[in-house]
Amino acid sequence: MNNMEAQQKASAFDVMNGTESQGAINRSWRKGDLFLRGLALILTLSGAIVLGVNKQTKLVPVKILDSLPALNVPAEAKWHYLSAFVYFVVTNAIACSYAALSMLLSLSGKKGFVPIIMIIDLLMVALLFSSNGASTAIGVMGYEGNSHVRWNKVCDVFDKFCNQTAVAVALSLLGSTVFLLLVVLAALHLNKNSK
Amino acid sequence: MNNMEAQQKASAFDVMNGTESQGAINRSWRKGDLFLRGLALILTLSGAIVLGVNKQTKLVPVKILDSLPALNVPAEAKWHYLSAFVYFVVTNAIACSYAALSMLLSLSGKKGFVPIIMIIDLLMVALLFSSNGASTAIGVMGYEGNSHVRWNKVCDVFDKFCNQTAVAVALSLLGSTVFLLLVVLAALHLNKNSK
Repeated sequence: MNNMEAQQKASAFDVMNGTESQGAINRSWRKGDLFLRGLALILTLSGAIVLGVNKQTKLVPVKILDSLPALNVPAEAKWHYLSAFVYFVVTNAIACSYAALSMLLSLSGKKGFVPIIMIIDLLMVALLFSSNGASTAIGVMGYEGNSHVRWNKVCDVFDKFCNQTAVAVALSLLGSTVFLLLVVLAALHLNKNSK
Repeated sequence: MNNMEAQQKASAFDVMNGTESQGAINRSWRKGDLFLRGLALILTLSGAIVLGVNKQTKLVPVKILDSLPALNVPAEAKWHYLSAFVYFVVTNAIACSYAALSMLLSLSGKKGFVPIIMIIDLLMVALLFSSNGASTAIGVMGYEGNSHVRWNKVCDVFDKFCNQTAVAVALSLLGSTVFLLLVVLAALHLNKNSK
């Protein structure tokens, strides 16, 4: 009888401290965390692939002499011609590899990993946003050109190349927003547990 | 006598629970937090100013006709000619205004502000890194040019303008690293309190 009373008291104590509801919150947070990591993996991987296979060959009319008709010279646009796009593919490849690794770490369920994973997530946010900024700046220059520095737009010729780059940047931007969301959720989770 | 014993027990309980050392950690964390916010304020403000006052006028020789000698035409480089640099100045201005505001919020000492401030810090990391990426991409293009898209380097002419841009980007990059550090410290702080 004494034993049962002690058990009842213990379980009442658990409920008062919210241990049970805390466990439910932890489980649903972990599920959401895993889902977002999968999403980040898919988005950054497809961003890297869409830009990494991007190339376009076009015949561009070039006039060598005014008296001769224009010659059609094949011109190529490849992603690795521009350092900003190389940086983009590399950072997205790093981010998607890390997303896969962090899914495994998150599945292990060790509490000690939470702040470490959160800090690397944060580094991914910085890395991805800087590479998105760089690619967007070069992309906008390609679409619009700039008369002050005499850089002509190139997207009127390499239309398919530019559009594919825009899709890659959009995918990666969504991926980096997911990483940002992961940091926010981990912060709210730690804050809830610290109360 | 009984009262004194109770007091002794209570203080022993406090020490066991680390309440005193926790308070010391909280105070030193808050001091470090304030110092870093001040640093971020100075760095992003000077980044915005250094780029915001950036302009250079140079006489560039232009040949109109082959038979005539080259004419020296004044050419100007201004920061607002390039959209990436406008984005840079705007984001740095936002970040330094927020750094000032967050110092006030942090000084208020309300615990509920900690996760909110942390999330806005994180948004600043994303904003600043994207604008640093954009400005660096345009800056590198100005220094090196790119033969594939026929964008010539312009920094051989506008040397002072380019160097001042590089200084501004370096300052802002340090500022964004400070914001990154603020998020890391807040995460570790929440994590310590959640144990």
